[in-house]
Amino acid sequence: MIETPYLLFLGDAHDQLAAKVAQGIKDWRPEFALGQLRLPGCKADMRLPDMTLAEAREAGAKTLVIGVANRGGVISETWKAELHTALEQGFDLASGLHNLLRDEADLVETARRHGRKLHDVRIPSVKYPIANGVRRTGKRCLAVGTDCSVGKMYTALAMDREMRERGLKSTFRATGQTGILITGDGVPLDAVIADFMAGSIEYLTPDNDPDHWDLIEGQGSLFHLSYSGVTLALIHGGQPDALILCHEPTREHMRGLPGFALPTLEELRVAALSMAQIANPACQVVGISINTQHLSDEDALDYVAGVEKSMGLPTVDPFRHGAGRLVDALSAI
Amino acid sequence: MIETPYLLFLGDAHDQLAAKVAQGIKDWRPEFALGQLRLPGCKADMRLPDMTLAEAREAGAKTLVIGVANRGGVISETWKAELHTALEQGFDLASGLHNLLRDEADLVETARRHGRKLHDVRIPSVKYPIANGVRRTGKRCLAVGTDCSVGKMYTALAMDREMRERGLKSTFRATGQTGILITGDGVPLDAVIADFMAGSIEYLTPDNDPDHWDLIEGQGSLFHLSYSGVTLALIHGGQPDALILCHEPTREHMRGLPGFALPTLEELRVAALSMAQIANPACQVVGISINTQHLSDEDALDYVAGVEKSMGLPTVDPFRHGAGRLVDALSAI
Repeated sequence: MIETPYLLFLGDAHDQLAAKVAQGIKDWRPEFALGQLRLPGCKADMRLPDMTLAEAREAGAKTLVIGVANRGGVISETWKAELHTALEQGFDLASGLHNLLRDEADLVETARRHGRKLHDVRIPSVKYPIANGVRRTGKRCLAVGTDCSVGKMYTALAMDREMRERGLKSTFRATGQTGILITGDGVPLDAVIADFMAGSIEYLTPDNDPDHWDLIEGQGSLFHLSYSGVTLALIHGGQPDALILCHEPTREHMRGLPGFALPTLEELRVAALSMAQIANPACQVVGISINTQHLSDEDALDYVAGVEKSMGLPTVDPFRHGAGRLVDALSAI
Repeated sequence: MIETPYLLFLGDAHDQLAAKVAQGIKDWRPEFALGQLRLPGCKADMRLPDMTLAEAREAGAKTLVIGVANRGGVISETWKAELHTALEQGFDLASGLHNLLRDEADLVETARRHGRKLHDVRIPSVKYPIANGVRRTGKRCLAVGTDCSVGKMYTALAMDREMRERGLKSTFRATGQTGILITGDGVPLDAVIADFMAGSIEYLTPDNDPDHWDLIEGQGSLFHLSYSGVTLALIHGGQPDALILCHEPTREHMRGLPGFALPTLEELRVAALSMAQIANPACQVVGISINTQHLSDEDALDYVAGVEKSMGLPTVDPFRHGAGRLVDALSAI
């Protein structure tokens, strides 16, 4: 569990996209994002107050989150002075980079000396159990995609926000590095040992109030050869009551797999529902989330309306049009 | 790669079943099994020559394989003297126990001093790639089960033996600890990091002659909530041309999951084939393997004949009736 609120470290980000972790935190947990810390040459701006480390500590920040990725996912030497000073001033550090904080001997030493924590969310910090399949109380919703990176995380976050605004009980359950940094907790599923994947999701989504919904962040796709096993472990560990189908209509082939076409939404519905019903025979597909970022306003509305008609399910782009109708669909079951 | 041939260490096995790794090697790779080494009180017997370490070295043995598991999967202190002597006399050691050889400081030191290797097949020794989905030359067959532990490994080994006897080109590809110890090589899939599961199977089954068959050892089941992700990674990493369905007809519920019924063979056919055809649209289900060990001779024949009729596929217990008809079915595609 990473202590909040955060100061977001944007480093020397070469463009706005390089700071997408910071952007995710600012978009989805603005109450965690007290300010930003930028080094000379930084091209990203979250439109948050620029703060020094001392100002952020004064304002209550507990953790300096590395909200930027440079090429190769390494911890840049040009960042080091600020990172050391942060530890000295009482910040913990959190990072989702491939290059682990704990592999930097100098940071480890400074953290030790000042009694601070280094959170590497890329790798598990928990010894997860093997899944036992026992039904838990409370309800769970999982976003599944025709491909990787089609908007599953944003769909779950948008539904979570909508549910909170309505006063409903919900928790976004992060299963990837960005999601974990956004919320401060979760399972880095792609780094879990095979035998414990489904168990890690049972661990992540324990017994809860009967009217509470876990909104589980999806990973990969049943149709993506590289990561499908991760997706199935999510489905069987999560035992979802509801599935949301996610799709990005301009994708020409499966991400990173030229020659492999995307499935249709109908193919995804059949495959995901049949797999989910092994774990939970009552599972239903309740809605569809379309990532329309590459479509014009008019094309987006047309596309969404066409899918809604052909699939017979509430269909929206939750980022563009709001997640209200998906939450309505959840609330109906 | 573990050097062969082996001397099989049976230790102080409390019964024959405790030495099932040694039994597997003796059954499936008798040419690797030069002899057995038993300590006082050993209740297992592979009907192999009892040899001292010196006699086995003289006969050409390269590796002492721990062919026995005691409770908890630990390396017993009572074995230690023989293990040290083996290293001193020029043996490598190989083990599939949870308690790793490399975690025993005294064995590590003796191995280092004598330039010998410690093979812990429970954990990967290779940094596997992420799967890229590129089709490989040669053919691949995968056994998939209605449940875990229904005979998938024995099915693949029996088919491999039959193909070799016919002079066909085949390789058994081990994906579990026992299989790796039997053949000396493979991928311990259940211990691979999630993101690399499918890639490890691509690595295991590379390009080969067009008429060569990899017979891939199955793991888990698409219907077993604890391990289904591992199974799907095998299906998508292996890109099989042929599937064999495996079933054990007396199982009352999914192994370790009371309350979860086994699927029917027809449900398995639909689920496994639809998933396999994502990777390889030409994939076919070619036969069925029934584990009849808990049935009488007459009941076994009746059951197998009934399945053959209802499923319309060659159906055998390869251990009891031979794998010839499954190999015929493979050869026909």
